[in-house]
Amino acid sequence: MTHSPTALIVGAGKGISASLARLLTREGYRVALAARNIDKLADLVAETGATAYAADAGDPGAVARLFTDVDADLGTPDLVVFNASARTRGPVQDLDPAQVLDSLRISAFAGFLVAQAAAVRMRALGRGSILLTGATASVKGLAGSTPFAMGKFALRGMAQSLARELAPQNIHVAHFIIDGGVASSWAKPGEEGPEDRWLDPDAIAREYWHVHTQHRSAWTWEVELRPWVEKF
Amino acid sequence: MTHSPTALIVGAGKGISASLARLLTREGYRVALAARNIDKLADLVAETGATAYAADAGDPGAVARLFTDVDADLGTPDLVVFNASARTRGPVQDLDPAQVLDSLRISAFAGFLVAQAAAVRMRALGRGSILLTGATASVKGLAGSTPFAMGKFALRGMAQSLARELAPQNIHVAHFIIDGGVASSWAKPGEEGPEDRWLDPDAIAREYWHVHTQHRSAWTWEVELRPWVEKF
Amino acid sequence: MTHSPTALIVGAGKGISASLARLLTREGYRVALAARNIDKLADLVAETGATAYAADAGDPGAVARLFTDVDADLGTPDLVVFNASARTRGPVQDLDPAQVLDSLRISAFAGFLVAQAAAVRMRALGRGSILLTGATASVKGLAGSTPFAMGKFALRGMAQSLARELAPQNIHVAHFIIDGGVASSWAKPGEEGPEDRWLDPDAIAREYWHVHTQHRSAWTWEVELRPWVEKF
Amino acid sequence: MTHSPTALIVGAGKGISASLARLLTREGYRVALAARNIDKLADLVAETGATAYAADAGDPGAVARLFTDVDADLGTPDLVVFNASARTRGPVQDLDPAQVLDSLRISAFAGFLVAQAAAVRMRALGRGSILLTGATASVKGLAGSTPFAMGKFALRGMAQSLARELAPQNIHVAHFIIDGGVASSWAKPGEEGPEDRWLDPDAIAREYWHVHTQHRSAWTWEVELRPWVEKF
Repeated sequence: MTHSPTALIVGAGKGISASLARLLTREGYRVALAARNIDKLADLVAETGATAYAADAGDPGAVARLFTDVDADLGTPDLVVFNASARTRGPVQDLDPAQVLDSLRISAFAGFLVAQAAAVRMRALGRGSILLTGATASVKGLAGSTPFAMGKFALRGMAQSLARELAPQNIHVAHFIIDGGVASSWAKPGEEGPEDRWLDPDAIAREYWHVHTQHRSAWTWEVELRPWVEKF
Repeated sequence: MTHSPTALIVGAGKGISASLARLLTREGYRVALAARNIDKLADLVAETGATAYAADAGDPGAVARLFTDVDADLGTPDLVVFNASARTRGPVQDLDPAQVLDSLRISAFAGFLVAQAAAVRMRALGRGSILLTGATASVKGLAGSTPFAMGKFALRGMAQSLARELAPQNIHVAHFIIDGGVASSWAKPGEEGPEDRWLDPDAIAREYWHVHTQHRSAWTWEVELRPWVEKF
Repeated sequence: MTHSPTALIVGAGKGISASLARLLTREGYRVALAARNIDKLADLVAETGATAYAADAGDPGAVARLFTDVDADLGTPDLVVFNASARTRGPVQDLDPAQVLDSLRISAFAGFLVAQAAAVRMRALGRGSILLTGATASVKGLAGSTPFAMGKFALRGMAQSLARELAPQNIHVAHFIIDGGVASSWAKPGEEGPEDRWLDPDAIAREYWHVHTQHRSAWTWEVELRPWVEKF
Repeated sequence: MTHSPTALIVGAGKGISASLARLLTREGYRVALAARNIDKLADLVAETGATAYAADAGDPGAVARLFTDVDADLGTPDLVVFNASARTRGPVQDLDPAQVLDSLRISAFAGFLVAQAAAVRMRALGRGSILLTGATASVKGLAGSTPFAMGKFALRGMAQSLARELAPQNIHVAHFIIDGGVASSWAKPGEEGPEDRWLDPDAIAREYWHVHTQHRSAWTWEVELRPWVEKF
């Protein structure tokens, strides 16, 4: 008997994660969704049969429990996606240090906790993919966006270190730079412009899947995605 | 009646181009292969039914004729791949200026000629993909490899300019950094190490195809590919 | 009467900071040195007349007190250097999450606290320089060095955001990539090789001074420094 | 008897080169200026006592003669600056291939010829600096500027290769990204905005001098310079 494989999406919401959950379900995956507030995931759970777990990904104990629960409920995931971030913004003199630290905790430290728990399991499995969601701010620190840049640069540094460390162990770590607005969050009814001027979350999900299924002789550690009409 | 689409691969040889020709044929494409010396393509032509054209891609007249011939014989290509390069190497004091200029002509100027002819046609078509093959040297100038870095950096600068210019015209320009040896050229019988420690050209071809078929709301302008065991 | 200008070096130790303290003293600056443990600074204080402050730069209250004290004792600094970092290392499965978070706190959050306090004061002054010390890990995430890369990438993202935000306010934010070992920490007696194969901390200090005194029509936001014999 | 050192500036015009010629003269250098058209250099020659040489830097024979003449007239230069470029612009379909090739010849191949001739001499001297002038286009390929990006990317690839190759031979190769307009060419009388919103060529010249005189334990291979009010 062959078990269905398991995927875990941490920081799940309505955009990329929802598209990924649908795609992975179609591909035969059991899907675990983790978020601080899982009420918002009820429709997605109903639609896909995914299992939702309430967890603060920035809390080491909560991440440990999350992975133990997923192992027990659905099996050890061979695909783990980290999607959480905190967008603290403002001119430097107005930023609240406690929020800046929390922003680093959610955008970067949580990514570490999730990647570490995934890596430990994937080393035992001998394979797996750890996919990390970045943003324009991962490679470009913009004025007025210091904490977001700090968190996203840190996550990218982690992704690059882990890609180098884990690739020879057959674990594929990849970082996605989502360089534009995602339709599910950005599109506003009645706006002018082509319909596909925002990133379609289904298209993004296909890119994650593509990287997960790349032949290991031709792995990518970083993928930039932007709409055809986006300035860059 | 629907015509089959046409693809043109310039700088065709036995590695990436051969894998692409096979993949494109399977996908229903008519395939044109261009190289300075087409004798080496005889087996591939026999196998895939592709049409071979002798052309020096660094010669403006030859490139103009190539595209006119392909238009007439197979139809205007909506996918053009540029794969040529010249690897002049040596310490700076030993380099022959004529070879350095020729290296720029083959690695970069030829890429421009091909991309320009493709862009003119794709602007009329209203769509298309121009895919350019780079190397580690596209982003890292190494000692002893000055002319190769010059040509590959130039091609990448062209790719980035054209990606920005042509994306809003629905023409997808993408640059591939092949960061490792390709099995067809590098693998030696009897070597130690995992079989897939060199880039499998079939895997690379699937990446080109993937980029060609990406949804335009989530386009990539650059893809890095390396084997799982490659240092980077 | 003209006051001497004041400089503050946070994360002061025996290498770059000591060289900077000497250089700044010669240039007529009053120098404040901050470190968690100031015992190690006794000789430098005796030599240069600098004032040492004990402070944990990762603690918001401590940083607030440090700046208030320096304002009162020496005057508001128009040059602030952040030099602290934590080098937690190891393969991902062996890393202690608490140490990873602490590493982020010291390498990145402390840099934010110092830069914020400096920026608030320099906005009032209408000028100033905030100089941040990076490392190879600021731009290259290496295997086995995940937490250090996370902290250093984050600090660089912050530097870039603040450079963009504060330059038009006549505040020069610059990031230094120290891409090699510093002689004071790395050189070992009896080693082979040229004497200047490690970065001379006096040479680094001159680079910080140079950036501090650059004409504002030609500012640099990032400087990479490495020994002539260093591989890169 | 100690000879004055000699510097050679290729692609000399009225901006950066003129400021450099003045600075180098003050520092005791004999200065050679090379340009295709030296009529425009008459005032600078009169002012500084520099020697002007007519030479097309994209012609191997002309570059060979230039260096031989400078060797004989002023002594072998230990500082060589390459400042030439060609700014062919336009949408891809309007570009003239002959101009694109010429643009590569002037912006990149000429840089190679000059750097090679300099490197051969500096290897014999055992020291020297080769400084190359780049632009925003060296790292960012913009729409409508394909040939300029090709030339400037190529020059940067050359600079990086030669920096790696020649640094261990005590030859300092550095690349300058001039990321903004230079006052001498861009400032227009009567414009609004701060006077120093364009790069002051004297300030740029001091940066070149600074890099030439850096301690070799702390060399920079690339320097970005932009006005404090420049967007980046």
